[in-house]
Amino acid sequence: VDANGADLGAAEVAEGAALAAAAGTRVLLFGPAAEIGAVPQGVTVVDAPTSIAKQPDPALAVRSTPQASIVQATRAVAEGRADALVSGGSTGAAIAAGVFHVRRGRGIHRPALAVPIPVRGRHVLLLDVGASAEARPEHLVQFAFMGAAFAHAVLGVDRPRVALLSNGAEPGRGTPAVVGAHERLSAHRAGADGMRFEGNVEGTDVLSGVVEVVVTDGFTGNIALKTIEGVSQTVVGAIRDAATASVRGRLGGLLLRSGLRGFREEIDPERAGGAYLLGLRRVGVVAHGRFGRTGFSRAIGVAERAVRERVVERTDAALEAAGALRRASSEHPISVSAPS
Amino acid sequence: VDANGADLGAAEVAEGAALAAAAGTRVLLFGPAAEIGAVPQGVTVVDAPTSIAKQPDPALAVRSTPQASIVQATRAVAEGRADALVSGGSTGAAIAAGVFHVRRGRGIHRPALAVPIPVRGRHVLLLDVGASAEARPEHLVQFAFMGAAFAHAVLGVDRPRVALLSNGAEPGRGTPAVVGAHERLSAHRAGADGMRFEGNVEGTDVLSGVVEVVVTDGFTGNIALKTIEGVSQTVVGAIRDAATASVRGRLGGLLLRSGLRGFREEIDPERAGGAYLLGLRRVGVVAHGRFGRTGFSRAIGVAERAVRERVVERTDAALEAAGALRRASSEHPISVSAPS
Repeated sequence: VDANGADLGAAEVAEGAALAAAAGTRVLLFGPAAEIGAVPQGVTVVDAPTSIAKQPDPALAVRSTPQASIVQATRAVAEGRADALVSGGSTGAAIAAGVFHVRRGRGIHRPALAVPIPVRGRHVLLLDVGASAEARPEHLVQFAFMGAAFAHAVLGVDRPRVALLSNGAEPGRGTPAVVGAHERLSAHRAGADGMRFEGNVEGTDVLSGVVEVVVTDGFTGNIALKTIEGVSQTVVGAIRDAATASVRGRLGGLLLRSGLRGFREEIDPERAGGAYLLGLRRVGVVAHGRFGRTGFSRAIGVAERAVRERVVERTDAALEAAGALRRASSEHPISVSAPS
Repeated sequence: VDANGADLGAAEVAEGAALAAAAGTRVLLFGPAAEIGAVPQGVTVVDAPTSIAKQPDPALAVRSTPQASIVQATRAVAEGRADALVSGGSTGAAIAAGVFHVRRGRGIHRPALAVPIPVRGRHVLLLDVGASAEARPEHLVQFAFMGAAFAHAVLGVDRPRVALLSNGAEPGRGTPAVVGAHERLSAHRAGADGMRFEGNVEGTDVLSGVVEVVVTDGFTGNIALKTIEGVSQTVVGAIRDAATASVRGRLGGLLLRSGLRGFREEIDPERAGGAYLLGLRRVGVVAHGRFGRTGFSRAIGVAERAVRERVVERTDAALEAAGALRRASSEHPISVSAPS
């Protein structure tokens, strides 16, 4: 766990680690020991005061700052001293450090950042939400299998339904990448390999419950995710206005409060545990910088569950069975010199 | 006005036309005379029973069906018998007929479909929401000027603030098209030419009120728009659940009802009058197929206002002043044969 970069400071992350440790997870915490203070039981603290969470170029910062807490935490995972990475700092630094040190899984084109969006008691997993800006068809195909394996193993969805996000439900709609991915995924409609491809969904159906995994490129996914956040805030704000505009409205708001408490908890991002970095050789969880201790402990819990449920191995097996792994020769051509 | 393709039938569109006519707009209505029945005062009905609103390939249908109501309505606009097009049928057919018959404005690369999203008493204009799937930098630059001119002339926004939708606020974030458009638009930050470019916004800020015009490609814009619709429905549904789950909740819902009525009207799509087809030689308005008579009369009213406020001419002048018009030579190279 990288304790640097969280809005509430490293001590809050340490409190989250303590909660996770109390629930049985062993935590190796990298951060400023002076800030963290008393070491909670079950947590090992490695003093790593250097933070690169605010650096404008995360890839450069990762390469030039080996002492950074996120780099040390990532190397601990890469070297087998830890099983999964949890970061509460910059998403960009976590992705860069993960790709550089933990490295992509065998045959994986690119990692993806996946976010579970809570919808009325269930979760929809949206990926990629920003690990990379653009995607080719073969990237989207791998994201589909990576998302399905994660939804099954960690979110507990039996045979998850998967769709591509597009500007129309028909197979021919979308960018060339979406159309190409649709063609390739159409062989997996039956779901015999644990993944049920449902075709395209439009923006209206991201949260409607028709699928459990929504696949898109990182540019579109980031915009969709943040639009969901923005609209939720706008609608809730409008209702709050209505509930404070008059005595009648205030009384109505008070009476509705207990009923809406469940809803507020449902859309509480801390409950989801963060975003998941999929496609590396180990699991990565990126907590939100705004999280408090509960959020960090959940993020650590999700990472622990992903390890226990062998998400990386299951993803690899599903991609292998589907013939969707990158062939080494296609991206790293070997030049053969003919014997003279 | 094309009366075919509306969910409630041509007679409902005719009632909307009657409302617009009563408010002083002369309406030329193309649709099935038998369905429309008695002709309202101020409305001229041209019997055009053929509809292509449900055809899977709108471009093909437009070319092969000259008697279709949308084609006849569009040709009336192209030939100067009407000043603006209003369609309540298929968006695809309206775009295809508009491009084919009304044609793109001089120096315009591509038309864009723009939707005004009502947010707490104001509007945010989002474009393109689906006229085309992908966009180059010069397309996005033109969309910015087209949107700003429309927001000023029709939505009444003084010196509209314009932003590109991206996966990060920093200038370098986004697809190559977004980064390229950002570079070109950065010369228009001051707003001396009536357009204030504010850089990139993320999904969270589409509705937050920091800008009045949000520019993106048709794929991303369509997904953002439909995500906004879907999330609004999900959040409102969750509140409805809370307001019916218990006696206490039901009483609270009743007391809040009058306060929320204003909010419901605000998010009522009929009030916006539809989507606007910008970048043609005449104004086009695409009403939603679900609209009732009020929605159609507003759509006709918006078209009338756009004509009166000379949106097409203003857009042309702004693009010309900004040097953002397509040069004929760049897309239609002239081969010059050297004299021998």
